[in-house]
Amino acid sequence: MSSIGSCPLRDKTGSDGRYLRMELTCRSCNENGYGSAPSRAITLQVQSCVVACAEIVDDMCEKAKSQIAIRFKDMRGVEVFDLTLRRQLQWLGPVESDELATFPKVGVFGIALIGVIFWNIKKVSGGGGGGGGGADNLPADDFDEELFKEKLRERRAKPAHVCSSFFLVPAMSCKCFAAMVPSGPLVPHTIERRAVGPNDVAIDIKYAGICHSDVHQARDEWAAGIFPMVPGHEIAGLVTAVGPSVTSFKVGDKVGVGCMVDSCRECQSCKEGDENYCESGAVMTYNGKHKYKHCMEHTEDGGTPTYGGYSQSIVVDKGYVCRIPDNLDLAGAAPLLCAGITVFSPMAHNGLKAGQKLGVAGLGGLGAMAVMIGKAWGCEVTVISRSENKRAEAMSELKADKFVVMANDEDVKAAANSLDMIIDTIAAKHDIPTYLNFLKKDGKFVMVGVPPEPVSFHAFNIIPKRKTITGSMIGGIRETQEMLDFCGKHNIICPYELISGDKITEAYDRVVKSDVKYRFVIDTATF
Amino acid sequence: MSSIGSCPLRDKTGSDGRYLRMELTCRSCNENGYGSAPSRAITLQVQSCVVACAEIVDDMCEKAKSQIAIRFKDMRGVEVFDLTLRRQLQWLGPVESDELATFPKVGVFGIALIGVIFWNIKKVSGGGGGGGGGADNLPADDFDEELFKEKLRERRAKPAHVCSSFFLVPAMSCKCFAAMVPSGPLVPHTIERRAVGPNDVAIDIKYAGICHSDVHQARDEWAAGIFPMVPGHEIAGLVTAVGPSVTSFKVGDKVGVGCMVDSCRECQSCKEGDENYCESGAVMTYNGKHKYKHCMEHTEDGGTPTYGGYSQSIVVDKGYVCRIPDNLDLAGAAPLLCAGITVFSPMAHNGLKAGQKLGVAGLGGLGAMAVMIGKAWGCEVTVISRSENKRAEAMSELKADKFVVMANDEDVKAAANSLDMIIDTIAAKHDIPTYLNFLKKDGKFVMVGVPPEPVSFHAFNIIPKRKTITGSMIGGIRETQEMLDFCGKHNIICPYELISGDKITEAYDRVVKSDVKYRFVIDTATF
Ligand SMILES: [Zn+2]
Ligand SMILES: [Zn+2]
Ligand SMILES: [Zn+2]
Ligand SMILES: [Zn+2]
Ligand SMILES: [Zn+2]
Ligand SMILES: [Zn+2]
Repeated sequence: MSSIGSCPLRDKTGSDGRYLRMELTCRSCNENGYGSAPSRAITLQVQSCVVACAEIVDDMCEKAKSQIAIRFKDMRGVEVFDLTLRRQLQWLGPVESDELATFPKVGVFGIALIGVIFWNIKKVSGGGGGGGGGADNLPADDFDEELFKEKLRERRAKPAHVCSSFFLVPAMSCKCFAAMVPSGPLVPHTIERRAVGPNDVAIDIKYAGICHSDVHQARDEWAAGIFPMVPGHEIAGLVTAVGPSVTSFKVGDKVGVGCMVDSCRECQSCKEGDENYCESGAVMTYNGKHKYKHCMEHTEDGGTPTYGGYSQSIVVDKGYVCRIPDNLDLAGAAPLLCAGITVFSPMAHNGLKAGQKLGVAGLGGLGAMAVMIGKAWGCEVTVISRSENKRAEAMSELKADKFVVMANDEDVKAAANSLDMIIDTIAAKHDIPTYLNFLKKDGKFVMVGVPPEPVSFHAFNIIPKRKTITGSMIGGIRETQEMLDFCGKHNIICPYELISGDKITEAYDRVVKSDVKYRFVIDTATF
Repeated sequence: MSSIGSCPLRDKTGSDGRYLRMELTCRSCNENGYGSAPSRAITLQVQSCVVACAEIVDDMCEKAKSQIAIRFKDMRGVEVFDLTLRRQLQWLGPVESDELATFPKVGVFGIALIGVIFWNIKKVSGGGGGGGGGADNLPADDFDEELFKEKLRERRAKPAHVCSSFFLVPAMSCKCFAAMVPSGPLVPHTIERRAVGPNDVAIDIKYAGICHSDVHQARDEWAAGIFPMVPGHEIAGLVTAVGPSVTSFKVGDKVGVGCMVDSCRECQSCKEGDENYCESGAVMTYNGKHKYKHCMEHTEDGGTPTYGGYSQSIVVDKGYVCRIPDNLDLAGAAPLLCAGITVFSPMAHNGLKAGQKLGVAGLGGLGAMAVMIGKAWGCEVTVISRSENKRAEAMSELKADKFVVMANDEDVKAAANSLDMIIDTIAAKHDIPTYLNFLKKDGKFVMVGVPPEPVSFHAFNIIPKRKTITGSMIGGIRETQEMLDFCGKHNIICPYELISGDKITEAYDRVVKSDVKYRFVIDTATF
């Protein structure tokens, strides 16, 4: 074939000649003059006919090119895109043959997708067979033009493809505070944020809450941390840019990012919206790695590290960004992204109802959020505390209905068999059976705090009234949005103490001593 | 008044003159010649007008008497009865004034009921006022005859009041096997069963299963037992008589009785059909007392003791009797009443679905039932055992799909993260976290066995995959019926070894050694 020498794909197959990766661009964006930013990078398992096809496409008339429709599924559902293979196919680097092993993870739909791509490309190429075929074979007999036109019609009947906020934002550096070494002080530092990809939302971070787990991780008290570490997973800010496939956010929106910035997107948990329980592991907002191949920051050695909210900007896939209601104070909303969702999720998941009686054990940031959300939920809220000294704040400031002091036998006796659910936020050793005794029949004891030691109970504590002990870990993205909407509706923010970047190290010591009501929030304008 | 000397009620008020108890008979039964067995005994708080009324009623024309309609509620709903106060009002013994304290437990409806009775009686008596009024005042002006007639019409429009099986069965004695003293052998004995009340079902017991808890109680290993003790709460037999208000059972029906023969009928649990979790405590089938005032066997000193299924007959309120499907072997069905419902209830309550993966820990009677029911449920069933030696029976006889030996590291590793629910029937010490590790995200660990010691786990065992530890204790009556219907549909009985009464003591020793597949069932024909 005359054009074979000029085909940009010809030398791009993998080392074993079976893989190639190509980018596809959105034709409507293109036609509207928005350039040719890739909307999707797809790895194809190459067969000889496809290599031929690619060569042919490169050489082909526009009409033939336009007949390639690709149906693909993203996190949020199925869309039909009208795509054309660009003449300037871009090679994204060598593809290791171990990618074959990743195909099964794609799932049945993924396999079907690849089948569809092949099918369409085969139509264009006029069928299989090494290197054979040419433009004169087009359109192939079995190419379903009617179906294709119908899909295009459907597509066009929908609201126009939103490309108004489409522009290219290159990678750029930003100021942050980081622990340069384990247990080191939090000091000014600079990190790079990635270019805004098609599904990305770029955020100007205004505030970041300090979560107790930030302290644990910056002090490297858990698994081996990645340093320098930029903590922060209670992020609130404003959108500064969105990628061309983002329709749910626009520049200027108030948004938040919580504990995760990515997940496998394929497991049962991800499919159910429980990305926090991703079976392959969510990519944590900091101290994690962009480990999934679908991510632009994925690298051959496991992905670039993630850096959190103690910084002035972040770029996050739209699937992991939530909208903060306009009426909420942005600084006070930041802690909702971890503390808020951590207590909201088990209330929702375990079916708490208005009118029920909710116990909240422990009155730190999580406990305070649980009281406020529980009240807004329509529950009678009982704070269960180890000492008397938080009674006033619980009752007056947080509007709890009752206050039980564990050291007070009368309190304990009166509260027996009275609660439908207890959100246990205590991260220290405590005696579970005493708390279980506060529950009614079918009562639920939800652990969201992690005591360092094992806890124990007797089967008799749960069997005779069919009680339940369960745990909960932050929440999924959809649930986080529900929580934010709920807080917006009820005007709930977390009470906070605003600090500048140079006070983070000091704040950490106070967090450890529980000397804060109820969250430190960092003002990133001070960086 | 001329008749006052002959009024059978005149001297029947309580010591403080404020209470009387009277019996009401069903008029339609009466008219049909079925005699005058009481359909309901009611304690009224007496006011002077009511005493007068009673006197008057006694003296009154039949027309006036027939105008007393009493609406009352029983366990199964509200019924309107057409009743007349019988001339021969029967005094049931003195009523202690502490009954006043029990009135609040009757609940709002009960209060309303008493109000209705008063209202009607007042109509008949021609209004309040001590001793005044007479037959010439009738019908009272405000007696709503139209409403009354309408109620009668409604009542008559329904299927005829079923009285075909109505007859009086007096109290009678029956043969049984009893532990005469704690830890004594089970020996032949005789007990009395009560007369068949209006809501009672008399049962000819054919078979009774031996539950491990029978051994604990006969050996007085739990709370102080009541001796002589007739154990047995896995009862299967045939109906020999029913009271006049019983329409759901008839003579000859195959029926079963489980762990309870009564409950308060007023608490939230009872109302929801969870009589097993009755907040005032269910009346256990044996080693309990007929402690509720609504029960014919209630006595001033707390009620007569209950005697269980190791006997040839029993009389039980219809609300605590279940129907055994005709296709089931009666002996093999007996253990369903405890072992079956104990594992069925948590499967149903915790939302086990067909296609899910169920683990069963321990393979005694409960475990065997859980495997069979789990298979019929449509689950893949994994038996988790401490040793290899039950593999063959689990796989071949009970048709389990997988067998995990806890001592086998490879088994344990392979089963990690694979199960949706585990029914834990183990009553010995065991390591909960290892079992929790078998659960998937949102997996549920249900304890139905009671290890003697407290169990422990770490919050990390449940939080990251939102796992749940819960308990379950037998099941409610409605659920027990569902279980029996389910077993009927799937032809499930408990594999059993049939024994005669004189082998019970020996069988107990074998139960303790788990030397039975899977239940001993006593043939009461051998007594
Ligand atoms: Zn946090
Ligand atoms: Zn996932
Ligand atoms: Zn990523
Ligand atoms: Zn039992
Ligand atoms: Zn009850
Ligand atoms: Zn009773």
